[in-house]
Amino acid sequence: MKPAIRVTVWNEFLHEKENEAVRRVYPLGLHQAIAEGIRQEGVEVRTATLEEPEHGLTEEVLNETDVLIWWGHKAHGRVEDAIVDRVQERVLQGMGLIVLHSGHYSKIFKKLMGTSCSLKWREVGEKERIWVVDPAHPIAEGIGQYVEIPHEEMYGEHFDIPKPDELVFVSWFEGGEVFRSGCTYHRGLGKVFYFRPGHETYPTYYNPDVLRVISNGVQWAAPRHGATPVYHHTLPLEEIRSTK
Amino acid sequence: MKPAIRVTVWNEFLHEKENEAVRRVYPLGLHQAIAEGIRQEGVEVRTATLEEPEHGLTEEVLNETDVLIWWGHKAHGRVEDAIVDRVQERVLQGMGLIVLHSGHYSKIFKKLMGTSCSLKWREVGEKERIWVVDPAHPIAEGIGQYVEIPHEEMYGEHFDIPKPDELVFVSWFEGGEVFRSGCTYHRGLGKVFYFRPGHETYPTYYNPDVLRVISNGVQWAAPRHGATPVYHHTLPLEEIRSTK
Amino acid sequence: MKPAIRVTVWNEFLHEKENEAVRRVYPLGLHQAIAEGIRQEGVEVRTATLEEPEHGLTEEVLNETDVLIWWGHKAHGRVEDAIVDRVQERVLQGMGLIVLHSGHYSKIFKKLMGTSCSLKWREVGEKERIWVVDPAHPIAEGIGQYVEIPHEEMYGEHFDIPKPDELVFVSWFEGGEVFRSGCTYHRGLGKVFYFRPGHETYPTYYNPDVLRVISNGVQWAAPRHGATPVYHHTLPLEEIRSTK
Amino acid sequence: MKPAIRVTVWNEFLHEKENEAVRRVYPLGLHQAIAEGIRQEGVEVRTATLEEPEHGLTEEVLNETDVLIWWGHKAHGRVEDAIVDRVQERVLQGMGLIVLHSGHYSKIFKKLMGTSCSLKWREVGEKERIWVVDPAHPIAEGIGQYVEIPHEEMYGEHFDIPKPDELVFVSWFEGGEVFRSGCTYHRGLGKVFYFRPGHETYPTYYNPDVLRVISNGVQWAAPRHGATPVYHHTLPLEEIRSTK
Repeated sequence: MKPAIRVTVWNEFLHEKENEAVRRVYPLGLHQAIAEGIRQEGVEVRTATLEEPEHGLTEEVLNETDVLIWWGHKAHGRVEDAIVDRVQERVLQGMGLIVLHSGHYSKIFKKLMGTSCSLKWREVGEKERIWVVDPAHPIAEGIGQYVEIPHEEMYGEHFDIPKPDELVFVSWFEGGEVFRSGCTYHRGLGKVFYFRPGHETYPTYYNPDVLRVISNGVQWAAPRHGATPVYHHTLPLEEIRSTK
Repeated sequence: MKPAIRVTVWNEFLHEKENEAVRRVYPLGLHQAIAEGIRQEGVEVRTATLEEPEHGLTEEVLNETDVLIWWGHKAHGRVEDAIVDRVQERVLQGMGLIVLHSGHYSKIFKKLMGTSCSLKWREVGEKERIWVVDPAHPIAEGIGQYVEIPHEEMYGEHFDIPKPDELVFVSWFEGGEVFRSGCTYHRGLGKVFYFRPGHETYPTYYNPDVLRVISNGVQWAAPRHGATPVYHHTLPLEEIRSTK
Repeated sequence: MKPAIRVTVWNEFLHEKENEAVRRVYPLGLHQAIAEGIRQEGVEVRTATLEEPEHGLTEEVLNETDVLIWWGHKAHGRVEDAIVDRVQERVLQGMGLIVLHSGHYSKIFKKLMGTSCSLKWREVGEKERIWVVDPAHPIAEGIGQYVEIPHEEMYGEHFDIPKPDELVFVSWFEGGEVFRSGCTYHRGLGKVFYFRPGHETYPTYYNPDVLRVISNGVQWAAPRHGATPVYHHTLPLEEIRSTK
Repeated sequence: MKPAIRVTVWNEFLHEKENEAVRRVYPLGLHQAIAEGIRQEGVEVRTATLEEPEHGLTEEVLNETDVLIWWGHKAHGRVEDAIVDRVQERVLQGMGLIVLHSGHYSKIFKKLMGTSCSLKWREVGEKERIWVVDPAHPIAEGIGQYVEIPHEEMYGEHFDIPKPDELVFVSWFEGGEVFRSGCTYHRGLGKVFYFRPGHETYPTYYNPDVLRVISNGVQWAAPRHGATPVYHHTLPLEEIRSTK
């Protein structure tokens, strides 16, 4: 039997403590809603938050994590650089990483991308329609032509990211913008998936299609234990004839 | 329980009938060696060959095929255009396609690529080393740094194909050439994987690493039943305000 | 001094003859408006149309064409296969090709793509906004954040094309859809650029930004005379040691 | 008349001072050989080195640089982080960057890539053959099928970089390895080109084909002054109807 995929959902978990409107939507925190929404046979889920020691991301936790899901917004700067380095290292070794919504500005995402990860935004609760542009991609499995979210924060292009390895979703916004909403990357042995929706004041993480996409992302990003690259000084594999 | 993946291995099956040297290596045909090598729990394998009616690729067979594996060499021109169109249609609807070695010049591969699919070649039985360049890719799972094949036909760049969606393997040849040996593409709802090795006079399709790669390819290319694109004239989703 | 880039604008040229509303917008034909709009120092432009002998695309014309621009809509089936093959051959040898709007369904585009090139559409004259998603791309040079077209036909995803080598533009439509509007590909030695806007009943090809993009596309697609691939049987470059 | 492209060639410039064998090959430093080799009409070249104040990369110098070429090897750690940040900022604003050989391990390249940029290596002076795999790419202009370098350091896969936007060259090495030798990326408004050859003890930067590739890279990476992305909070472009 295949071993379960071990997921850790990381949440900044500040809005929910400080803002009644957010708490009404996510009484136990965004991370609990996501964890609840993606838990299923073959997937073990735990959570971690900013204010835990080491942000809940000790070496032990990361070593037991196959896929890390990241939600942060107002306190990116409070995430310690040493923890960011540790997460990056684990991604390069094969841990999957799913970055949600405002996590586009997290230290870990910017570090893995190498760009500013800037974008345009507007918060008026407009309609978003997330179109599938690569229906052959496993992350789009079970999704129809698009996912509609009645009220969301708008993110607009230009989104300053490297060209995605694969572009799975593009969002339409009522106010006139588009956005590359579902982007995949390989980084070292690890797989990274950025997925746009999820402003803290909307019940987006209860939407079955949104949860389906995140669950698909977990399956896609879970590490394999196959090809192992080697980096070092190396002896010749063939007899060299041209040496001076 | 997940339903089994249904694979059809298609082989031209002429060399084996006409050439004693080939028959010694593949007494029952290349297709039987491949079928035998990839059969495992969760994978059902059948075969089809050129000289069967409709080349063994009736509508019924294709409709019951999740992944089609293609080996052809000297008789690409004898494959009927109607059958090629049928295979293309099934790929666009989601059937996976794995094209091996000299299948680079098959009608179906050229039709899906849109280019000449030309390359350089040399048959002197030189050494090939197939390096993994994307160790995060599921098709490289379980492979070390490279697969070594002691004697193979050489294929060299330039290989006139569209830029691969993903480049998984690059081959080194003893005689001085390189080749993009493992290339993936999405075409419609279908996934296509080209994998280079397998000249008919070498026992390449008994090599456990080569079989592992083909098996990985089967898992990767097997169709999902998710996002279903719709193509048609469509009514507005939003009320249009700018109409003249 | 650099030699001029020689452009041929090909137009089906049927709507303009048969439909008064179209003729009012493009009295001399779409091809003349485009030719006029992109003519500048260093760019020589001629035109060709469906009903000319060999559709105006004789071997001589194609041999003297650096970049071919293609607009067709209602008579794709009337383009002779032999001419399509001739154009494909020239693209693989290095001629640039810019496919506009309904040319997505032309024989030549489908042949170079290998997919159905299907899409969704709606003709109610809604607003289109073409966003730049790759501002570093030379085809976006001189364009602001987006190009706005007050009235256009809608094209919506899923657009059944291979993953673009580069995605330069994404369109937003008032009625609720998005579309990958500016897509580049290499095919052999040739460069292909698909650009979405240009329904025959709207004055889109007088829009300075649209003309700027097409002009940029001409510069980008114009052939170089550099690396020349060779495809043939080849002798070993290195002494082979592993031959049986 | 088009303004000249302003190039700054940056070199660590330590080997040449400390090692007689290197000095014999590059008496004035690698940077002077490269500068000399790429200087031509329309290209102005200056140099900068590690031990100059601010490593020769003051704000003024960078503001007047269209394309920065980077060679470093043994003292990556001595490059100040503030200067690295400054270079990254300029790349995101549109400055081109060409990273040569051992520059794969420079702070600026690793920062723009987000990965370890590790690889395998061996220094025995073996033969390298750099094959063109994308002959339509402007960086390959004027190059034949491959560039041969009789004696070079080997770099082998796996090279831990993000998937290149475009893969232009792949190297073959006599000792049995392959390497993705010519890789392009967009980062923000800037273009990045990694090119492999150039160990300090070999006269690689006098090779006309190598200089041709670097010159092509300069032309390709030189900034355009076109599409200017905007990142900020933004007002709706369309009247929003769905607001709660």
